Amino acid sequence: MSNYLKPAGKAIFKDSYTTKMNELFIEPNGSKSRYGILGAPLSKPSISHSGAAFAPGAIRQAMGSYSTFSKEISYDFQGENVIDFGDVEMHPTNILDSQDRIYQATKSVLDQEEAEQLIVLGGDHSVSFPSIKAHHEKYGTIGVIQFDAHHDLRNLDDGGPTNGTPFRRSIENGVLKGEHIVQIGIRDFTNAKGYDDYAKEQGVTVYTMEDVMTNNIDEMIQQALQKLENKVDLIYLSVDMDVLDQAFAPGCPAIGPGGMDSHSLMKAVQTAAQHDKVQAMDIVEIDPTIDFRNMTSRVAAHVIFSYWKGKVLGK
Amino acid sequence: MSNYLKPAGKAIFKDSYTTKMNELFIEPNGSKSRYGILGAPLSKPSISHSGAAFAPGAIRQAMGSYSTFSKEISYDFQGENVIDFGDVEMHPTNILDSQDRIYQATKSVLDQEEAEQLIVLGGDHSVSFPSIKAHHEKYGTIGVIQFDAHHDLRNLDDGGPTNGTPFRRSIENGVLKGEHIVQIGIRDFTNAKGYDDYAKEQGVTVYTMEDVMTNNIDEMIQQALQKLENKVDLIYLSVDMDVLDQAFAPGCPAIGPGGMDSHSLMKAVQTAAQHDKVQAMDIVEIDPTIDFRNMTSRVAAHVIFSYWKGKVLGK
Amino acid sequence: MSNYLKPAGKAIFKDSYTTKMNELFIEPNGSKSRYGILGAPLSKPSISHSGAAFAPGAIRQAMGSYSTFSKEISYDFQGENVIDFGDVEMHPTNILDSQDRIYQATKSVLDQEEAEQLIVLGGDHSVSFPSIKAHHEKYGTIGVIQFDAHHDLRNLDDGGPTNGTPFRRSIENGVLKGEHIVQIGIRDFTNAKGYDDYAKEQGVTVYTMEDVMTNNIDEMIQQALQKLENKVDLIYLSVDMDVLDQAFAPGCPAIGPGGMDSHSLMKAVQTAAQHDKVQAMDIVEIDPTIDFRNMTSRVAAHVIFSYWKGKVLGK
Amino acid sequence: MSNYLKPAGKAIFKDSYTTKMNELFIEPNGSKSRYGILGAPLSKPSISHSGAAFAPGAIRQAMGSYSTFSKEISYDFQGENVIDFGDVEMHPTNILDSQDRIYQATKSVLDQEEAEQLIVLGGDHSVSFPSIKAHHEKYGTIGVIQFDAHHDLRNLDDGGPTNGTPFRRSIENGVLKGEHIVQIGIRDFTNAKGYDDYAKEQGVTVYTMEDVMTNNIDEMIQQALQKLENKVDLIYLSVDMDVLDQAFAPGCPAIGPGGMDSHSLMKAVQTAAQHDKVQAMDIVEIDPTIDFRNMTSRVAAHVIFSYWKGKVLGK
Amino acid sequence: MSNYLKPAGKAIFKDSYTTKMNELFIEPNGSKSRYGILGAPLSKPSISHSGAAFAPGAIRQAMGSYSTFSKEISYDFQGENVIDFGDVEMHPTNILDSQDRIYQATKSVLDQEEAEQLIVLGGDHSVSFPSIKAHHEKYGTIGVIQFDAHHDLRNLDDGGPTNGTPFRRSIENGVLKGEHIVQIGIRDFTNAKGYDDYAKEQGVTVYTMEDVMTNNIDEMIQQALQKLENKVDLIYLSVDMDVLDQAFAPGCPAIGPGGMDSHSLMKAVQTAAQHDKVQAMDIVEIDPTIDFRNMTSRVAAHVIFSYWKGKVLGK
Amino acid sequence: MSNYLKPAGKAIFKDSYTTKMNELFIEPNGSKSRYGILGAPLSKPSISHSGAAFAPGAIRQAMGSYSTFSKEISYDFQGENVIDFGDVEMHPTNILDSQDRIYQATKSVLDQEEAEQLIVLGGDHSVSFPSIKAHHEKYGTIGVIQFDAHHDLRNLDDGGPTNGTPFRRSIENGVLKGEHIVQIGIRDFTNAKGYDDYAKEQGVTVYTMEDVMTNNIDEMIQQALQKLENKVDLIYLSVDMDVLDQAFAPGCPAIGPGGMDSHSLMKAVQTAAQHDKVQAMDIVEIDPTIDFRNMTSRVAAHVIFSYWKGKVLGK
Ligand SMILES: [Ca+2]
Ligand SMILES: [Ca+2]
Ligand SMILES: [Ca+2]
Ligand SMILES: [Ca+2]
Ligand SMILES: [Ca+2]
Ligand SMILES: [Ca+2]
Ligand SMILES: [Ca+2]
Ligand SMILES: [Ca+2]
Ligand SMILES: [Ca+2]
Ligand SMILES: [Ca+2]
Ligand SMILES: [Ca+2]
Ligand SMILES: [Ca+2]
Repeated sequence: MSNYLKPAGKAIFKDSYTTKMNELFIEPNGSKSRYGILGAPLSKPSISHSGAAFAPGAIRQAMGSYSTFSKEISYDFQGENVIDFGDVEMHPTNILDSQDRIYQATKSVLDQEEAEQLIVLGGDHSVSFPSIKAHHEKYGTIGVIQFDAHHDLRNLDDGGPTNGTPFRRSIENGVLKGEHIVQIGIRDFTNAKGYDDYAKEQGVTVYTMEDVMTNNIDEMIQQALQKLENKVDLIYLSVDMDVLDQAFAPGCPAIGPGGMDSHSLMKAVQTAAQHDKVQAMDIVEIDPTIDFRNMTSRVAAHVIFSYWKGKVLGK
Repeated sequence: MSNYLKPAGKAIFKDSYTTKMNELFIEPNGSKSRYGILGAPLSKPSISHSGAAFAPGAIRQAMGSYSTFSKEISYDFQGENVIDFGDVEMHPTNILDSQDRIYQATKSVLDQEEAEQLIVLGGDHSVSFPSIKAHHEKYGTIGVIQFDAHHDLRNLDDGGPTNGTPFRRSIENGVLKGEHIVQIGIRDFTNAKGYDDYAKEQGVTVYTMEDVMTNNIDEMIQQALQKLENKVDLIYLSVDMDVLDQAFAPGCPAIGPGGMDSHSLMKAVQTAAQHDKVQAMDIVEIDPTIDFRNMTSRVAAHVIFSYWKGKVLGK
Repeated sequence: MSNYLKPAGKAIFKDSYTTKMNELFIEPNGSKSRYGILGAPLSKPSISHSGAAFAPGAIRQAMGSYSTFSKEISYDFQGENVIDFGDVEMHPTNILDSQDRIYQATKSVLDQEEAEQLIVLGGDHSVSFPSIKAHHEKYGTIGVIQFDAHHDLRNLDDGGPTNGTPFRRSIENGVLKGEHIVQIGIRDFTNAKGYDDYAKEQGVTVYTMEDVMTNNIDEMIQQALQKLENKVDLIYLSVDMDVLDQAFAPGCPAIGPGGMDSHSLMKAVQTAAQHDKVQAMDIVEIDPTIDFRNMTSRVAAHVIFSYWKGKVLGK
Repeated sequence: MSNYLKPAGKAIFKDSYTTKMNELFIEPNGSKSRYGILGAPLSKPSISHSGAAFAPGAIRQAMGSYSTFSKEISYDFQGENVIDFGDVEMHPTNILDSQDRIYQATKSVLDQEEAEQLIVLGGDHSVSFPSIKAHHEKYGTIGVIQFDAHHDLRNLDDGGPTNGTPFRRSIENGVLKGEHIVQIGIRDFTNAKGYDDYAKEQGVTVYTMEDVMTNNIDEMIQQALQKLENKVDLIYLSVDMDVLDQAFAPGCPAIGPGGMDSHSLMKAVQTAAQHDKVQAMDIVEIDPTIDFRNMTSRVAAHVIFSYWKGKVLGK
Repeated sequence: MSNYLKPAGKAIFKDSYTTKMNELFIEPNGSKSRYGILGAPLSKPSISHSGAAFAPGAIRQAMGSYSTFSKEISYDFQGENVIDFGDVEMHPTNILDSQDRIYQATKSVLDQEEAEQLIVLGGDHSVSFPSIKAHHEKYGTIGVIQFDAHHDLRNLDDGGPTNGTPFRRSIENGVLKGEHIVQIGIRDFTNAKGYDDYAKEQGVTVYTMEDVMTNNIDEMIQQALQKLENKVDLIYLSVDMDVLDQAFAPGCPAIGPGGMDSHSLMKAVQTAAQHDKVQAMDIVEIDPTIDFRNMTSRVAAHVIFSYWKGKVLGK
Repeated sequence: MSNYLKPAGKAIFKDSYTTKMNELFIEPNGSKSRYGILGAPLSKPSISHSGAAFAPGAIRQAMGSYSTFSKEISYDFQGENVIDFGDVEMHPTNILDSQDRIYQATKSVLDQEEAEQLIVLGGDHSVSFPSIKAHHEKYGTIGVIQFDAHHDLRNLDDGGPTNGTPFRRSIENGVLKGEHIVQIGIRDFTNAKGYDDYAKEQGVTVYTMEDVMTNNIDEMIQQALQKLENKVDLIYLSVDMDVLDQAFAPGCPAIGPGGMDSHSLMKAVQTAAQHDKVQAMDIVEIDPTIDFRNMTSRVAAHVIFSYWKGKVLGK
């Protein structure tokens, strides 16, 4: 405009040659796209105080800090769309209803078949159950590669469906089989023996941090994919950002030393996403209210980009 | 000890002549005391993200920063006990159950009749409903003097029993009558017209901040007490710390300018507490995770001390 | 929606009876409204490091924390529109061009005559010159009531049109006469003697903080209005938030003790706005990057509401 | 310089008409000046963790944020010198030696007779004993007006000469008489009864915060001066910034509600300083490491300016 | 309890299958345990401002964030006790007395022979001298493996027994021989040449960060153990957390780049602890007041767990 | 002094054997030294809000935290001088003039020929153009090794000479040739494809982060030096600290994951500096106002030390 006016909040510097990732976002309109995102802003189920409900906004904002071009794979996402399905509306005082709404919303999004690859932005890890349940109902048998310091196989009797229970809940509700779960990054002094026992009983594959430190992460991902590819219809990545060392993901509720570095996680997700059966991902357990300069959401943005790079390479 | 060892966390400087307020705390043991406190660490019902669940701990800690002696009334609380009934255990994923537990716990404490004056440390304002309900069942007709920027008369259909609803919920459940509620400090642009209408319909007495600014706070309290004293069996003070200006209570979730200063609130509570029928208080809506140096919990500590000073003077 | 999906960032709790102030915002569309706002996100001219460019966003967000109903004047703004003209686009490396763009944009907005009362959201105080210049060209002789700890009459030779110069620049460019300026809240040890001399030479009326502390602020405003009303065509309020004490406005670049409290400023603006000739206001010198919990932007929101209350009362 | 180079840290904007207060500072050189400052960066004696050792630097820096001109008294300090005697060098592990060094340094400064009015910048309140001792030895009988929430009359047996003991230590060492001490701003629940008793025994005059709230501060200061002026040779002001409410002095170690506001303290010091016998001041208990934007040091700067204004008016 | 009440501060979520590390803590009661901890909350001797006195509390709290099960070594510590000997009470104004009290307390604890392995939680590094002295008196010749960016061999004349002197002081007092000290992680531009010379003169073994970066840390530890095992009676690990890179230990007073990562330190301590002669450790130089989310204390907790894992493996 | 007085701010602990790096600083006085530094405190040209203008002060202060001795190369810088040429004085409202002043000042410093090796402390990256221009005019053909996540080859039409343009501006003004630029650390999703195309067109050598991760950094530097050494007269290192991962340089405006670690950058600079033709460096894009504990400035200090170590080794 000749009067230099722009809508509120948009009057920032625009370089004519640069497209920011969030400029690719469109609202769902019936057309199809390879890429879709959906916010699940729920953290009231968390065992500890958590502001992970703010993460969908923080991750979208972080995506707006980066551009569409990957030099490493010589690919520019400019010209493509990312369907932003928006956020699921939460109930203020009924937590189970909120989780059910995430299921309903995810199912509705999957049924619309507008986006090939849905990425769910948590929220705490409890959002994985409703999301995986919706994927299960739509796509059949689901395999999960879970990046996490924790098993998340806690019993549901002590506190209901908290952020410590999504995979237990999935197993107990027939949404997942234990043998279709591969856990990467499990850390010492971060889980109870009882849940390690349960993981073994259920046939869950577990790679500890020591495994990650002493092996090649790409090979580990290939092993995981091979274990799952013939048994399941769809492989779902579940990325709990606390799999990272606290130096790299300072904004997770349950931080600690001895975890992965960001580069390895990005590589791992990129490698996994190259597989055809990997068709969904969630990213959870980022609390922007305690983060430093949205660092953890910035890693999340790059994990998403890595997933998309994998899809480009995997074509 | 000759080896200079003290239990962990206790090895701080002790002046032989000084008793800190938290040194008066005892666990309930069947004996009686004038003073009792009970923590209700619940903030998941809050409409906005709230860490008010940490306030009982923060207020207790703040009480430990101050001594037992009031020079203004020439009275030393040293030698008396404050029964600390502990904290109500919350359910991680069932908010209504948590509120019910607060009711059960408060009722249990009241039934034990160990403390003459119970002070409930919230938590968000939703804890007032279960607390007042327990008082109602134990003591009969309850009058409330509520210090608050907000009416807290929101409808329960939109989001259930949030922190915006305790007095509506109390009226609708027959726990309180509107005409037995006096609200002090109601602020402009902080409430909907529909709830002002509801307050009028229900006969709630409302003093706005302009009333507070242009009148004597002690006289306002006297008027409130006179309005209630012949109609009710017990007067309950409900202190939402956001009645204070944001400069004085920076740690409330819903801060804003144009509120009361701390000194006026302390005076008001002291004056009210001199009345025989005032026998209970709650303090709510302090979120220590966003406060500055626990300032707001420090005010809360002094509001409690003011209540106790009132009781000494009212004897 | 039955699938519980809402556009990103909108999935927050909505009370059916409550309208938030920012829900009144509309983009300009040719229709008329009493109220308009315009963002001038410029702080590179500031003498000290300033993030006041973020204030238009922070103030709009703060307005979204408050509702449309004033109990004090029994008036609900619900149903009215506030035209949000958006933000002026700044040039990254040409500061004088940025200031000129503010002039162009303000002039364009005034020429459209869509909003009766324009409020310009700075930015630093340098935005007042281009804004007042546009008002001058549209409306004729301008009077200014400036709330400020500082004269802002610095010479332009030392550093060009910084945030210390808007009223000197206005006088030197024939946009304002010194005798049409009333300054309220000027503070000790905060201005140079040379600029006090200049103020006297130019006939600027100056009320110091000691004047504010020892007199009635409403009467002071009435005096200011009487001084200006017959000499000017339009009275413009310029509110530098550092007129407030640092305890009430911790987010201004140049904070200090001994200033006004928020309530007095709100009252003063409300009183001034009741005058027919008062038809514009700017609010400047809020740096959200150094504020505590957007306190200073929250005061700004209430200063705007106070202006609008004045207009309702002044009808 | 034509090459635009300035010594490191000096290349900030300089307005030709403005002199900042710290531009008046000179190192001692044998010439005389009315004004002198001396840093006593000691806080290891504090009972609680304190960074008050950083206050001399923070206060000097705050003084550099303000200019030399007082409009209220129509006086420009430009052209005068403030002798900055520097900081006393502390011993890392010998606290009593550090306190003795403050005594030695203060005595040395007083003996040089270069500055008429010495202001000592603490440090915690333990620095008052060595400073007052030096004044006592140089000037004879000392009277003290102490602004403080606390008596600072703790026994010395429990922990030696901490920041809670300076006036007890002064009395016990014959440096001060209790009847020559006036304490202003003593707060409830902030002192032990035993020390109130000791104050009475020793004839200390005590004005509580309730006295301050319900009386005129200027008259209170006049009373204090009248009480002391005929009994002592020099009146020393000791300003513990925690006399202020936590909203106005958020950076003191021992904050709390219900204290003075900054304007009243500034007025009180200005009034006191007009008296001929007032010839020294210390400012203590500011911990810049926990302050918000050096607010408390900014108040300290204005307290110093108020003292100097008093001296100008008292001439 | 049926009334849902728990003692204050204990009403947090309890998973029936999970034991937190701090649930193993018991007070000393005459029974024996393999594991013991002792707090030495002293940081006043530090050359720079330090809140390391808060570290014992912060480390204990961090231990409470982690569970008792190590999957890496298939071992659950549940069922064992950790004797928490509490904190040594410090003198507020006599630093040397405080250090002596640490010696007295450590000696007393060692003489009781309740815990096989004592871990001393500093505090600053000055606590190592009294701790090592007590071990020396109890156990004979002591060897030290010190993880540190600094030699800590400063002369004692400049400032007495500061946190820069513990190993010099130990050598000069006959508590340690230089040849029995192995320093790991010494960093460039972090030590004076004079102290490097002193280290050489005294026969101290020094591994720099470049050594750590270019060699296998496990082998380095094995070399250190071999060097010491035949010469000493007990090997004492002294872990100054500033041996870590500032990205991994942001809460140490003397941070800098180019240090170790947490995983390497944990491995090194685990390896060392497998040796029979390693029977004590201290962890020092964590200042929780400047840390980010207690990250550095969390590493400390895992360093302790690594030590205990080593002891399990070394059995 | 016997009175223990030291100039303000100097009264800190001094170890007789330790020299801090900033104790080597001298003002220019006509004598010659190997080392020189010059501050260019300019960040108003930045596209995003930046306080990089504070970095010269923060880096100098960080240098004061470290000592002069390198054990790795067995060299003590004690006895040498670092000429601190001070800071270039910036114009408050004329950004292009400020950039020109940096050129003038740098040229003046180079013409004086007092320091062999000049290190320019930014400021944002826009300072590299005026600095390199001055070097070009003094020394002839310039080669650049740029450590950066970004190309900084943005067009100048959109926003003038911002911090995204220095190398484009250098090429377009004939100050540099594209083929004389080697960029190291270029990151995915951080640059537009159009600028990658431009880099190729201009013959810029680009090493991405994937190149850095999968190759030996020393060999990469050797390759870069070999590419440049025969074509240029002087090699200039331009270190944008955002080449580091956000975990290692949290204080850069444009942070993100997947970057270099500090140790690698330090090694790379040391290796480069051993080359005779490397004779200048700038360090840019540190914003101390958003950093954590000046971590990023601390890395900058060590990058400078690494450069100097390289020069010692390269002799
Ligand atoms: Ca998880
Ligand atoms: Ca996890
Ligand atoms: Ca409320
Ligand atoms: Ca409220
Ligand atoms: Ca201004
Ligand atoms: Ca101003
Ligand atoms: Ca005191
Ligand atoms: Ca005090
Ligand atoms: Ca050490
Ligand atoms: Ca160290
Ligand atoms: Ca750059
Ligand atoms: Ca860059």
